[in-house]
Amino acid sequence: KMSDEQKDALTESDRVINGLKDQYKRFIKPVEDMYKFPVFSSPALTDTDFDSKPMVLCIGQYSTGKTTFIKYLLERDFPGLRIGPEPTTDRFVAVMYGQNERIIPGNAAGVQKDKPSTALQKYGMAFLNKFEVAELPAPILRSLTFVDTPGVLSGSDQTKGRQYSFSEVIEWFAERADRILLLFDAHKLDISDELKEAIGALKGHDDKIRCVLNKADKVSNQQLMRVYGALMWSLGKVVRTPEVLRVYVGSFWDKPYDNMDNAALFDAERNDLLADLRSLPRHSAIRKVNELVKRTRQAKVHALIVTHLRNQFGYFGKTKKQRKLLENLTDEFNQVQQTYNLPKGDFPNVERFSEIIAKFDMSKFPKLHQKMIDDMDKVLSVQIPKLLKEMPNFEKPMSA
Amino acid sequence: KMSDEQKDALTESDRVINGLKDQYKRFIKPVEDMYKFPVFSSPALTDTDFDSKPMVLCIGQYSTGKTTFIKYLLERDFPGLRIGPEPTTDRFVAVMYGQNERIIPGNAAGVQKDKPSTALQKYGMAFLNKFEVAELPAPILRSLTFVDTPGVLSGSDQTKGRQYSFSEVIEWFAERADRILLLFDAHKLDISDELKEAIGALKGHDDKIRCVLNKADKVSNQQLMRVYGALMWSLGKVVRTPEVLRVYVGSFWDKPYDNMDNAALFDAERNDLLADLRSLPRHSAIRKVNELVKRTRQAKVHALIVTHLRNQFGYFGKTKKQRKLLENLTDEFNQVQQTYNLPKGDFPNVERFSEIIAKFDMSKFPKLHQKMIDDMDKVLSVQIPKLLKEMPNFEKPMSA
Ligand SMILES: Nc1ncnc2c1ncn2[C@@H]1O[C@H](COP(=O)(O)OP(=O)(O)OP(=O)(O)O)[C@@H](O)[C@H]1O
Ligand SMILES: Nc1ncnc2c1ncn2[C@@H]1O[C@H](COP(=O)(O)OP(=O)(O)OP(=O)(O)O)[C@@H](O)[C@H]1O
Ligand SMILES: [Mg+2]
Ligand SMILES: [Mg+2]
Repeated sequence: KMSDEQKDALTESDRVINGLKDQYKRFIKPVEDMYKFPVFSSPALTDTDFDSKPMVLCIGQYSTGKTTFIKYLLERDFPGLRIGPEPTTDRFVAVMYGQNERIIPGNAAGVQKDKPSTALQKYGMAFLNKFEVAELPAPILRSLTFVDTPGVLSGSDQTKGRQYSFSEVIEWFAERADRILLLFDAHKLDISDELKEAIGALKGHDDKIRCVLNKADKVSNQQLMRVYGALMWSLGKVVRTPEVLRVYVGSFWDKPYDNMDNAALFDAERNDLLADLRSLPRHSAIRKVNELVKRTRQAKVHALIVTHLRNQFGYFGKTKKQRKLLENLTDEFNQVQQTYNLPKGDFPNVERFSEIIAKFDMSKFPKLHQKMIDDMDKVLSVQIPKLLKEMPNFEKPMSA
Repeated sequence: KMSDEQKDALTESDRVINGLKDQYKRFIKPVEDMYKFPVFSSPALTDTDFDSKPMVLCIGQYSTGKTTFIKYLLERDFPGLRIGPEPTTDRFVAVMYGQNERIIPGNAAGVQKDKPSTALQKYGMAFLNKFEVAELPAPILRSLTFVDTPGVLSGSDQTKGRQYSFSEVIEWFAERADRILLLFDAHKLDISDELKEAIGALKGHDDKIRCVLNKADKVSNQQLMRVYGALMWSLGKVVRTPEVLRVYVGSFWDKPYDNMDNAALFDAERNDLLADLRSLPRHSAIRKVNELVKRTRQAKVHALIVTHLRNQFGYFGKTKKQRKLLENLTDEFNQVQQTYNLPKGDFPNVERFSEIIAKFDMSKFPKLHQKMIDDMDKVLSVQIPKLLKEMPNFEKPMSA
């Protein structure tokens, strides 16, 4: 189980994210808005952009213990959960944080703005009927979202019976997932053609994949070696990367081990897997920090450029001036760069910038107050480093 | 270690082989000679054909413990043996049974008629200088011959430095081996391109390959899983068969285990490997029995055909008779088959037989005594079944 300390570690990333959100809203977004930065770059960041949790996608043959594993991490049932030795989970379930326990059916979830599932609509009704969001206030969900999936079935009528393309949906989730867990049953290893196809749909996301050889305590040591060996043998042929996939071997639920021979190994493996999952919010937070740093620097440069341009307007001859400035944009960029000693890499593409600014009356942009620039600089040089220091085990410096 | 019982089991195959040889010399070979069967079929069997032991070929990166493993099975040193952490074995060594301990250098071994290495001469002096036969009276060598090989070295100058093609020699041995053991070091797993090339040279003999993950007690449980997984992952890509290669995990020498966690597993694995090696003489003996049964039946049919033909000659008109018989050989074959109620499958190809017998004066073949045929039948119906009954765990009936 996760210790309380570990649970706290998970939510520290949350605090960082909340801090980022706050800084963005107070000091960056106002400047972005003043100088129409979203029109030049990408839309302004919303709460969902900050709050979306790293997603853990669980895939595997039926009855390998996917749902049980999620329940184990939640330390409780989630609404709609069904566990059993026969194929049980019959839909994709995004298990997310919510104050109140509830199920949002796929069709409804598909249109809610604040759920990351809007795009799922493109898979149509047949899929949305087989998708739901389960919300509940489990602590781990403050940091991670899990996606439970219907077990892969052997036999070719799977896809037909489902009326939507299992592999396509898997591909969509894989694209958005931060971690993809492939679960296997040591007691009944089965790498069917259907599973191989599903693994094939993960192509390009190999770095996100980890495997779990579950129920490893249900077999003898020698059997376990055979099964594990057979799994690696087959995986090596299906997953085309030269690097060996990490396979966590153990039993991932809250029951004691059947065969205690490997208790120490299984414990160590479980700890490794939990540590990996715990690292996801941090990595995700770091990625968000890096993205925000980059955006802030670009927004600042953008504001300085636009201000520089507007400041060159007198009372008369505005149209002529605008045309002249547009003709000499590269020179103007250089002037801004030298005046404020800015890195070239933070500057926008001249052609693209020129194209967009041409649609604005430059002289109408508001005046920039030094305090705004100072605040932005403070976000970069003081606030964000301070937030990062709160994160446990933060080693990697953000890319400058 | 092998128990005395196990050692006895190994030599039971020897007794079977000796019995076969005796029966062949006393009851089959005289008939073969009388009717020139070797000219029509394949050369008469020699002692070497019967006595050659099943061959176990050991291959692996340097220092994986190949030589140590052979020494462990012999329960003693063999002449010329060198063991060490650096690359030590610098030649191919056939470790064989001999009353007296001695080394026969490659050049000498290459020309000795009773050594199975005559054919090695085709690889030339450069190779023969790097080949030797080590003879010693270790019990296991009554049943198995081991071939120790120079460790595969990483880095491309291996083949150049060696002046003979390592892969070609490996291929030659693999063709003749009954078992190919690929040794790996759990403590220092290295599957170099050179090793992959050597494994490539085993193509077509996949059913003979077994792997040994040696020194598995030198690493922690978790490390062992990683290494074993990485090995299977890579092997699956190098060995193209869908069936998973059997990998024996453990420590294959006479020292106690370092890490005792997996003692039971390692013991079980060692027993499995020894059982596999113990089964080789039996399989090899069974193969020889089957070959002798087939040969005896063909020799008997051959004798009956030739006798049938010779018996049709009167005192005169021999040349004409011979020509007539040659023209109607199919009919004559049919007559023999019906007269003695023989299986069609034991008959030779008519054209080939005709071509060869045409060079003989059929009338000159000696008369066949019924006792000779009776003795051959007794070999098939009494003596060989009796010999087989002496073999432990003999389940498979010989192919009729
Ligand atoms: N670690 C474990 N050890 C032993 N049994 C387990 C373990 N985890 C789950 N099980 C059992 O395996 C069966 C299948 O579990 P579960 O329903 O969680 O699998 P699933 O992968 O979600 O299957 P499906 O694809 O059908 O939804 C259940 O009977 C469950 O109790
Ligand atoms: N089972 C084992 N556990 C630990 N160490 C071992 C084991 N077997 C061999 N060694 C050690 O490994 C080293 C290499 O052994 P050895 O010379 O038998 O390997 P090799 O495969 O024959 O090497 P080469 O290819 O150079 O001939 C030696 O130091 C030996 O003592
Ligand atoms: Mg399930
Ligand atoms: Mg050696």
